[in-house]
Amino acid sequence: MIIAVDASGGEYAPHEIVKGAIKAAHDFNANIALVGNKSVLHVLAGKQLKKLNLTIVNASQTIGFHEHPMEAIRNKPQSSIAIGINLLKEGKASAFVSAGNTGAVLCASLFNLGKIDGVERPALASLVGLNRSAPAILIDAGANADCRPNHLLQFARLGNTYAQNILGIDLPRVGLLSNGEEDTKGNRLTIESHQLLKKSELNFIGNIEGNDIAKGTADVIVSDGFTGNIVIKTVEGLGDSFIKLRQSSDAYDGRQRLRGRALLADVGLGFLVKGIDFREYGGACLLGVKGNVIVSHGRSQARAIKNAIGLAKRTAERDICQIINEVTNA
Amino acid sequence: MIIAVDASGGEYAPHEIVKGAIKAAHDFNANIALVGNKSVLHVLAGKQLKKLNLTIVNASQTIGFHEHPMEAIRNKPQSSIAIGINLLKEGKASAFVSAGNTGAVLCASLFNLGKIDGVERPALASLVGLNRSAPAILIDAGANADCRPNHLLQFARLGNTYAQNILGIDLPRVGLLSNGEEDTKGNRLTIESHQLLKKSELNFIGNIEGNDIAKGTADVIVSDGFTGNIVIKTVEGLGDSFIKLRQSSDAYDGRQRLRGRALLADVGLGFLVKGIDFREYGGACLLGVKGNVIVSHGRSQARAIKNAIGLAKRTAERDICQIINEVTNA
Repeated sequence: MIIAVDASGGEYAPHEIVKGAIKAAHDFNANIALVGNKSVLHVLAGKQLKKLNLTIVNASQTIGFHEHPMEAIRNKPQSSIAIGINLLKEGKASAFVSAGNTGAVLCASLFNLGKIDGVERPALASLVGLNRSAPAILIDAGANADCRPNHLLQFARLGNTYAQNILGIDLPRVGLLSNGEEDTKGNRLTIESHQLLKKSELNFIGNIEGNDIAKGTADVIVSDGFTGNIVIKTVEGLGDSFIKLRQSSDAYDGRQRLRGRALLADVGLGFLVKGIDFREYGGACLLGVKGNVIVSHGRSQARAIKNAIGLAKRTAERDICQIINEVTNA
Repeated sequence: MIIAVDASGGEYAPHEIVKGAIKAAHDFNANIALVGNKSVLHVLAGKQLKKLNLTIVNASQTIGFHEHPMEAIRNKPQSSIAIGINLLKEGKASAFVSAGNTGAVLCASLFNLGKIDGVERPALASLVGLNRSAPAILIDAGANADCRPNHLLQFARLGNTYAQNILGIDLPRVGLLSNGEEDTKGNRLTIESHQLLKKSELNFIGNIEGNDIAKGTADVIVSDGFTGNIVIKTVEGLGDSFIKLRQSSDAYDGRQRLRGRALLADVGLGFLVKGIDFREYGGACLLGVKGNVIVSHGRSQARAIKNAIGLAKRTAERDICQIINEVTNA
């Protein structure tokens, strides 16, 4: 089982991506294909190529963060994203991890891999670990800004399957993110979605509010991609503030981050910071396309990439893609 | 200048409301009318009634949190909310503070006070203090779940006026909360709103993302009320987690909360917790109705109420209502 990793995507590519991949190859005994500029990767990975299960797949083009996703995918067939997604399509890889342009990864996944039959809108399932006892899944974390009620019902089903298989929860509690507990509270989208969810086969616990996210009221938090993305980033921004807080104000590097982290751990806040720190979870899984695609944060450094590869490995081992296909078309 | 305070509204009414009002009357030299059950309030306020500028206005009915707002306002004309809003209408009070049923306060304000000419949708402006240097205003924090682009433009104008007069910022930076920085990122609502804001007279800095809230990128954060409410409550939930974290797990009372707070302050986290703690800001201001209405958190205890009264006093002294009328109809 090979995990393809976009070595050209992300603010800290390729150095931190390669470091994270080496760490993952070592720690998880993962079989990794680094997709990117061959000569650069040879230099960076060096001796590790022989020691670990690391290979290199050349990709001569790179898609930047500010490129238009659709155009970039169309015009750059030799980009690391296009090639990584193709490795999935051709069965040469079991999962693909990218910290690059999220829109481009979504486009390539939708157009080159295609949607699983019966899935109208693939969605991003992001792990949020604000509760001590267990992380939850928020879906959609940003793939679909405008949604209809049946889309939210499908997100709930996708998230439910993911929570069962990745978090190991038999009967996940599915909550609908809204601005009030009662059925009648919400915007038009959530009020109608609530009725669909209530009639569904899911373990629907009703509306949940923003403050329920930290409480761990639900295992699967259902939201349109606009709201979900804002919530995830708000939490992430707070995480950054906490971590930066204890650092000296001038420089800002990995060691200082750790110092801040250690101090927080001293007062027992470590787990909460971990919970709001994207580096711990590494990535969101794009559910509903014909392939296991993990989108990692653009600012991912080695640890986030290592964790994203770990998540990709679990996702591929479970073959979430195949399970979603079976559940959707049962 | 009299501040009317709903003594029957909120989870900790009437005790904590009265305590907060006494503290505000003392600390801010505020002139306060407590609206609620006369005999109970006489017992609770006791000697303070003569010492401080405290009076009691009897209200024989109470509106609970789970009552339907519109029906409650219609069926309970003697409720503390209905009477408090009437004090505003009759010019007997300059501001009204309530920690009771928010929907009922909104209904009473809309129907009994009415909207300021030219304001289509009054909105809740909530202070968020995640940035060390200055708090920001998020508008709408929950009054309007479904919005159109021209509503968001108006929220921006209301928030701009509030930031100028309450935060003292000459030219507030107005940001539109979205799921991406670029003009083209967002849902249909924000993409269209972006264009309106760009053409407006405001100091519009473009889209901001969830992680910008903690960074303090904008002074006025513009959002529909659905998303705004979820963001505010997500942040509040995290604040609660941090505060609870250092408390013993069994009991949970005011003193323990303070112990947790003190510990966080020890490691320099105090300001951030303050920033995400609703108790510090006390309330959100309903902008666009003919009266200064402050909606406080349902879980408000004395400190939150005291701070809400302080905010109400500042709002009334500035006569935000009148300024909004002038700005809107200039």
